[in-house]
Amino acid sequence: MSKEKRQFRLGAFFMIPGHHVAAWRHPDAKADDVLKFDFYKKLAQTAERGKFDMIFLADGYAVGQNVSPTAIEQTVTVRPEPFTLLSALSSVTERIGLAGTVSTTYNEPFHVARKFASLDYLSNGRAGWNVVTSATKAEALNFSKEEHLLHELRYNRAAEFVDVVTKLWDSWEDDALVIDKTAGVFADQDKVHQVNHKGTWFSVQGPLNIARPPQGHPVVIQAGSSEAGKELAAQTAEVIFTAWQTLEEAQTFYRDVKGRLAKYGRSHDDLKIMPGIFPIVGRTEEEANEKKALLEELIPPAAGVGLLSAMIGVDLSGYPLDGPLPELPNLDQINGGKSRFQLLKDLAEREGLTIRKLYQQISGARGHREIKGTPQQIADQLEEWFKNDAADGFNIMPPYLPGGLEDFVDLVVPELQRRGLFRTEYEGHTLRENLGLSRPANQFTKVH
Amino acid sequence: MSKEKRQFRLGAFFMIPGHHVAAWRHPDAKADDVLKFDFYKKLAQTAERGKFDMIFLADGYAVGQNVSPTAIEQTVTVRPEPFTLLSALSSVTERIGLAGTVSTTYNEPFHVARKFASLDYLSNGRAGWNVVTSATKAEALNFSKEEHLLHELRYNRAAEFVDVVTKLWDSWEDDALVIDKTAGVFADQDKVHQVNHKGTWFSVQGPLNIARPPQGHPVVIQAGSSEAGKELAAQTAEVIFTAWQTLEEAQTFYRDVKGRLAKYGRSHDDLKIMPGIFPIVGRTEEEANEKKALLEELIPPAAGVGLLSAMIGVDLSGYPLDGPLPELPNLDQINGGKSRFQLLKDLAEREGLTIRKLYQQISGARGHREIKGTPQQIADQLEEWFKNDAADGFNIMPPYLPGGLEDFVDLVVPELQRRGLFRTEYEGHTLRENLGLSRPANQFTKVH
Repeated sequence: MSKEKRQFRLGAFFMIPGHHVAAWRHPDAKADDVLKFDFYKKLAQTAERGKFDMIFLADGYAVGQNVSPTAIEQTVTVRPEPFTLLSALSSVTERIGLAGTVSTTYNEPFHVARKFASLDYLSNGRAGWNVVTSATKAEALNFSKEEHLLHELRYNRAAEFVDVVTKLWDSWEDDALVIDKTAGVFADQDKVHQVNHKGTWFSVQGPLNIARPPQGHPVVIQAGSSEAGKELAAQTAEVIFTAWQTLEEAQTFYRDVKGRLAKYGRSHDDLKIMPGIFPIVGRTEEEANEKKALLEELIPPAAGVGLLSAMIGVDLSGYPLDGPLPELPNLDQINGGKSRFQLLKDLAEREGLTIRKLYQQISGARGHREIKGTPQQIADQLEEWFKNDAADGFNIMPPYLPGGLEDFVDLVVPELQRRGLFRTEYEGHTLRENLGLSRPANQFTKVH
Repeated sequence: MSKEKRQFRLGAFFMIPGHHVAAWRHPDAKADDVLKFDFYKKLAQTAERGKFDMIFLADGYAVGQNVSPTAIEQTVTVRPEPFTLLSALSSVTERIGLAGTVSTTYNEPFHVARKFASLDYLSNGRAGWNVVTSATKAEALNFSKEEHLLHELRYNRAAEFVDVVTKLWDSWEDDALVIDKTAGVFADQDKVHQVNHKGTWFSVQGPLNIARPPQGHPVVIQAGSSEAGKELAAQTAEVIFTAWQTLEEAQTFYRDVKGRLAKYGRSHDDLKIMPGIFPIVGRTEEEANEKKALLEELIPPAAGVGLLSAMIGVDLSGYPLDGPLPELPNLDQINGGKSRFQLLKDLAEREGLTIRKLYQQISGARGHREIKGTPQQIADQLEEWFKNDAADGFNIMPPYLPGGLEDFVDLVVPELQRRGLFRTEYEGHTLRENLGLSRPANQFTKVH
């Protein structure tokens, strides 16, 4: 375990065609290919070449036009559904993990348990589920609801959802499949269990109609950093994606969440904390600066304001671009991404940013940490966070694709490997093995 | 079109590891591989080598242990979720259609529209959706319901579900994506539409967060043969899978459904009727007979009774195997697969079958037509139905896999090709093109 402790985990977080809101306008971005499989296939294979632990795909259930009227015209609001895409990528990759977002707010535990179990089989143990709650009105309106659920109710539902999914994954014991042709016994009935869950949100009988996944449980990931989010993560998550600007913030969060594990009978290594990093890589500092300037230049102002409005949940389109943020509501009036709201509000106040400067700052990293510079400079920054208990690894958010990913794989990864901070070959065959997570026991298996 | 009229459509309907309830015990069946991707990859590539129009995967949301207590022990109740599997197969096949079952009873139109649109993009226009309703209590109990919906309500919900999905597929016009980097215009907002659906079952604002699928609409398939099923099919389906034993039944159904198309403004060729066929292929008649006898011998009696019970919706486990069916309820008391119930009841009465004989008869074809014999004999039977307005093609249900599929591809397909009844090369690139279905107009596009 000491070796694992000394090495990073890395996720390749793909927004298409890049995390920067103007990525699609970048001369090297494949904006025409956002719905073409070959584009994704090459990205996945590049990330696998770079020995990333996993590909990670975010998700949402609306184009977001309600908050940002120019979203459709000026940003990329179309993409393949992540789970469909990860399934297609499973057959053209071999070792990299396949992690995708599926919301607990507008789905059913039986479907989600079954689909991730299926992906885990088809990929030989490489599936990961990013558990989120859906927090926008635009999404509610696509699912026969007038309003989205209140923050606490969403997290309450999410906790029960994960509990049911976990039970369903365990509904077949690891050795339930007998497959004895001569005796005519396909499965041992005594090792297949109804889960008989009856809760506040769900009643699910089970068992699942697929055997226990190769990983036992596909890796459970979360991204919420609110109080409810941290508690849910400490209870159920194996990976957390977070967004922090400073070492101190990241350390505080790391200590806080790791400190909550014990009360759920979990240990420090059972949960990997991976802050998001928006890297702008140059062979020289100057090249990195030029890359950033080009991207900022390409942001259509309405798209920048729209993105910022969506992120803080307040419509800013009526305010002067070169003025300050207006008076914002208190945190307790926000029924959306609470931690994101607070982070941006703090950032604007701390650095005295205008609306334009703020949207330029967040149009790439979207609240995550931007690191700009040479491979050595970027490696220094990652190493600092890693060695000072702020991170177990990082979720890398390339500014534009495929170039931003290729830069990281070809320039930064070798530097990390030289320093012994990152693997040169996959240690294991499953995502769980590569992340250094143990295979969970089955809650229905009797110990003899 | 005359050429298309003269040729079959063929679906490769995979139950794993074969349609026969005892398939998994067959010496050549890959029972150990039912959750392994390579098994499915080879099957799909074999079907593509045989120029099948599509792979077709059925589905259900429970192991079925409630009706058949021995289901888990004696039959194969585990499998990959079809949509996940089809997505994984999309990247290892090139021309064959990828059709899967997704129920309208326990899903949301937004998810279903989006996933099939995504699969349609990733496969370059090869997606097909088999629209079903869920009709068992075991499934209801996995989705927080006490009972499944009544027959009419299920179909009412299904019709609205398909309507919403179709609207969502049309929410982006075909030329909505502009992708002009210089002007900063990714999409033309005037060609992206909220659907603002408000119905009995669903309220969905839209638009979808993916552009219009390559096929316009992925191909819509149905399988219900009840009155409500036929009406829904005439209104919305482009392919119907059916189960008929005799030429006369199949002709009556064909005439009936094709006759309903006009009132929805549709023509004869807009809907392809493809009865299921359970083929037992031998190089000689004797070999075919031996194959069938071997399969019958392998049926565990409890599994046979369980399958029959599940199919008619009545528990038969207390009755003597070699006696007749007990008194059955009237059709109007059945809230499940009504047409399947009637078909089996008629079959048992017509041929005076005992419970054992009946389960042996349906343990393979499951109510569909069994054709046993040499490639010539099988081709004769298919040709008769095709030339006498009973079928536009057939959904082939191999008894065990991969052998049963290989037999059909290597022995029967060449005979069909020799007779000019089946293609020797794919005509088109999309499933829709191969089936000879026109690309639907977009309901939101203004005609100029």
